Amino acid sequence: MRVLILGGDGYLGWPTAMHLSSRGHEVAAVDNYLRRRLAREEDVEPLVDCPNLHERCRMWNTISGKEIQPIITDLADRSACSDLFESFKPDAVIHYAEQPSAPYSMLRHESASLTLHNNLGATANMIFAVKDHCPDCHIIKLGTMGEYGTPNCDIPEGWFDLEYQGRTQRSLFPRQAGSLYHTTKIMDTDMLWFYVRMWNLRVTDLMQGPVYGLETDENSGHEALYPCFAYDEIFGTVLNRFCVQAVAGYPLTVYGKGGQTRGYLNIKDTLNCIELALNSPADSGELRIFNQFTETFSVNELAERVQAAGRDMGLDVVIESVPNPRKEAEDHYYNPAHTGLIDLGLEPNLLTSETLVGIMDLIARQRDRIRHDRFVRSVQWS
Amino acid sequence: MRVLILGGDGYLGWPTAMHLSSRGHEVAAVDNYLRRRLAREEDVEPLVDCPNLHERCRMWNTISGKEIQPIITDLADRSACSDLFESFKPDAVIHYAEQPSAPYSMLRHESASLTLHNNLGATANMIFAVKDHCPDCHIIKLGTMGEYGTPNCDIPEGWFDLEYQGRTQRSLFPRQAGSLYHTTKIMDTDMLWFYVRMWNLRVTDLMQGPVYGLETDENSGHEALYPCFAYDEIFGTVLNRFCVQAVAGYPLTVYGKGGQTRGYLNIKDTLNCIELALNSPADSGELRIFNQFTETFSVNELAERVQAAGRDMGLDVVIESVPNPRKEAEDHYYNPAHTGLIDLGLEPNLLTSETLVGIMDLIARQRDRIRHDRFVRSVQWS
Repeated sequence: MRVLILGGDGYLGWPTAMHLSSRGHEVAAVDNYLRRRLAREEDVEPLVDCPNLHERCRMWNTISGKEIQPIITDLADRSACSDLFESFKPDAVIHYAEQPSAPYSMLRHESASLTLHNNLGATANMIFAVKDHCPDCHIIKLGTMGEYGTPNCDIPEGWFDLEYQGRTQRSLFPRQAGSLYHTTKIMDTDMLWFYVRMWNLRVTDLMQGPVYGLETDENSGHEALYPCFAYDEIFGTVLNRFCVQAVAGYPLTVYGKGGQTRGYLNIKDTLNCIELALNSPADSGELRIFNQFTETFSVNELAERVQAAGRDMGLDVVIESVPNPRKEAEDHYYNPAHTGLIDLGLEPNLLTSETLVGIMDLIARQRDRIRHDRFVRSVQWS
Repeated sequence: MRVLILGGDGYLGWPTAMHLSSRGHEVAAVDNYLRRRLAREEDVEPLVDCPNLHERCRMWNTISGKEIQPIITDLADRSACSDLFESFKPDAVIHYAEQPSAPYSMLRHESASLTLHNNLGATANMIFAVKDHCPDCHIIKLGTMGEYGTPNCDIPEGWFDLEYQGRTQRSLFPRQAGSLYHTTKIMDTDMLWFYVRMWNLRVTDLMQGPVYGLETDENSGHEALYPCFAYDEIFGTVLNRFCVQAVAGYPLTVYGKGGQTRGYLNIKDTLNCIELALNSPADSGELRIFNQFTETFSVNELAERVQAAGRDMGLDVVIESVPNPRKEAEDHYYNPAHTGLIDLGLEPNLLTSETLVGIMDLIARQRDRIRHDRFVRSVQWS
């Protein structure tokens, strides 16, 4: 298949590009380096130095004999996005091309505006480009479990039968997000659903939980092919941050009570889920939604697991509760469904002590590059 | 009260400015003339010539002795919006400042992008400006009944108790809109609800149905103070269009089966509803939602009423079904609640034959200005 990966330079985009390339797909990785620019501006560059996208594609070719086409362009630019789809004519597009950080979206007015306009602009331009140039293309969109928030009831995979005053309507499940970033993902879903109904697009919207890890089958043993692994409070996801804090001898920073529970997955499973969705496309006129995670943990549970894995490595890991900079429930019910991808064949890589030690071993090789001032930035939600 | 009216040059913004000014409030009407620019570009200027906003404010001062401050600025510009709130320090803001047309949002990629970025940008900038300069200010936001779409069940006023698999959560009612424009209103609501929770804003979100009429207590007898009354297929709402078509001897253009049912209200009731909301503000941290309409009608019922009123005036009004350019249900269940504003004291101006004759009489005075090529533009939904 001809596959366009939007945001192909990112933490998940680049590993996805290699994974699908290794499977024999014709892959182009598209990026405008926005994520790199924001990390530099906020002084929170990733743990590993990432060669630029052209360089990475050359390296990938050297070790695999396969080609990924690097394309540097801005998808928030209407004509650039249209030109891209007109010339590449993808069978499938995987859309990661968004400002991906909740804290970044809460930093200041400017960063909120950037998140809103960039993320919705890229999604809208992709939708129009697909309609104009490849209407049968399967759109695989990265949403987030954060769209649902933490309701005091179970969470289905996107859809449910709304029962109200004696009548029934199939509906999108009500959503209520915890950051502006997460709210823009709700907006993306609403926009996709509208155009699916109007133009019979094929869309898979993946409600993904926080991802952890940095090694995949494709980059194993090739440090220069690792993804941009963030450990700072702005772009780093919680388990990755805890692993780096543990290696650095910095206390694990648990927000408040630490009962915040989410669905997590190994980066390898992100790739597996994308591949499963790709191989079994949504129907024309269908907005198919999967909840993409493999296990739920509270922040306290994650901290305890990292502490235990650290002990196995001879690290003395301290857990510290810090005042919660976010406005969120610190103790809540959480029971989201996640059978759709399992039914497609997903075999989860679960969070074992061995997995954690593996991640921390890789991090330990970069120990000298860890900067403690990146662990806490205290971006306030209110 | 000090009241900012965003979109104060528009069909509803200008009558609202006069109405609240007549009640003794200190009113500023803010606009960037976007609506006028788009109408000119699409060759669909309104029926009545509207003097510019400065001119209208001077005329209002002459006949009422009261002042409305005209402010020409672009609310989608971050600093301009911030400066406005910093200097005016409103007690309440009424936010109409959005591209208001569903067909315009469906015209082409460019018009969709404009709608998305302008409407969400203005709302986001208003939210930040309120938080920064007047956090206790009551935000009255114009939403639309179109946010809900036409589900096969009753529609509450915004909120409901979601019951799912034996547990309950108070939630926003699921929404599914029929145009990109209406979808941006869903996005506005989600964004407002997020910041209400984070920053304890006071917000009233008015889910308004299509409005009809052009005369209000304030402009009666003063044609130059009439609102920009659109009768074209892009910016005109259905009942206003039918009234102009009837006067022009043009067949009433019913889309498809004509069973499309919506909640309508007289422009006078828009003003009454805004005033009721203003006088009884939402609480801090509350997103209060009212469904703002007074009666539901199918398109066929509207056409028949206009036909009957036309007969009373000696007009021979023909009703014609045309192919539906929209993708929508032409026959559906529709039962939305609308008791909130009644409970606040609204006394509806219902759609009588007398009302219709009154509107058509005013239109007849402009008969020579009616251009038939504006009635049909056939903006296709799919």
